[in-house]
Amino acid sequence: MEQLLRVMNFNVSSDGIAAGEHQTLELPFGLDRAERLFSWAGATASWPMRTDPGGSRGLDDYFTRDFARNIGAEIMGRNKFGPQRGPWQDHEWQGWWGGQPPFHTPVFVMTHHPRPSFALSDTTFHFVDGDPTTVLAQARAAADGKDVRLGGGVTTIRQFLDAGLVDTLHVAVSPVKLGSGLKLWDSPDELLDRFDLEVVPSPSGVAHHLFWRR
Amino acid sequence: MEQLLRVMNFNVSSDGIAAGEHQTLELPFGLDRAERLFSWAGATASWPMRTDPGGSRGLDDYFTRDFARNIGAEIMGRNKFGPQRGPWQDHEWQGWWGGQPPFHTPVFVMTHHPRPSFALSDTTFHFVDGDPTTVLAQARAAADGKDVRLGGGVTTIRQFLDAGLVDTLHVAVSPVKLGSGLKLWDSPDELLDRFDLEVVPSPSGVAHHLFWRR
Repeated sequence: MEQLLRVMNFNVSSDGIAAGEHQTLELPFGLDRAERLFSWAGATASWPMRTDPGGSRGLDDYFTRDFARNIGAEIMGRNKFGPQRGPWQDHEWQGWWGGQPPFHTPVFVMTHHPRPSFALSDTTFHFVDGDPTTVLAQARAAADGKDVRLGGGVTTIRQFLDAGLVDTLHVAVSPVKLGSGLKLWDSPDELLDRFDLEVVPSPSGVAHHLFWRR
Repeated sequence: MEQLLRVMNFNVSSDGIAAGEHQTLELPFGLDRAERLFSWAGATASWPMRTDPGGSRGLDDYFTRDFARNIGAEIMGRNKFGPQRGPWQDHEWQGWWGGQPPFHTPVFVMTHHPRPSFALSDTTFHFVDGDPTTVLAQARAAADGKDVRLGGGVTTIRQFLDAGLVDTLHVAVSPVKLGSGLKLWDSPDELLDRFDLEVVPSPSGVAHHLFWRR
């Protein structure tokens, strides 16, 4: 059975920037008003972090409602888990995702620094040191035949793209220019040698970029 | 828990026609070349009737891959099950859907003529005589907390719309004019008193119409 590696609901600015250079505990994206990138998702009925009823059920909702469908594991870079660098000083802080993380699957956090696995609700975080091919094999084995989500951040996605391991990407490009920061691309056209691309403008103002491996 | 009633991947022509007047065993839609309406779906990787690998993973695929997500039952009109009219003459013919129907849930077929339930693979067909409100209550009870798909055909969808029971509709409008047949609408604007609408043109040529209850 085919198990895709999928980038989903990943947000960049119109100039391709996904995060600032200086991540802190208070600024997970290292950006002022990072919600300018992802507010389209929070407005939908199916946003996984939504706590109140309501929300739109138009085009954008098809992307947020697809978040968990047939996903059996997530791979993320260490910086999507927390702002620490170097050896873990403290195992008490359990990441940015709260007591009920939105993943509901095994999550593989890529880091050179070992740390014991732990579970929060129905999400289990594993800390793994390996190249993208090795980590993907681990995630696929844990995914019970389902697809694997490549959660980001941008450095991790670049690593897996460079290794030729990504099957599909959904990147939401927001109509805001950031100027400097960590870039996913200079232009989406950089991926056209390997991927088909459809660009779908949404009434919310974002342009959904849908890539799939040729 | 909210259980939506959802119309999904329903196809009409640019003049709002979903089927011809004269359905037969050979022409389930009562139309010559009915695939002009739904070929966009068959081209996607996630089309439930797909038997070979391949297919596109762009915008259209988000609609076909959503077909089964969080769906616990389907309601269909008798004409989506078969072309017979009046009392069932023959219980041996088990509908158009083959030995492996794409529903994988209970299916409630609306008919005034009783017939025993039966299962084909993991789909069970029940034959129910009742008004839309009653049938929806039966389907919700069988759906195990999940949403209910309103499968069509067009007469059944009109009945449930007139009863105010539909929560969301995805209607794919194809760039072909049919002139005569069974109409879903004269114009999609007819639903704007009750629904929000987004119209999303796809590279395949269809315009996805997404309605959700205001």
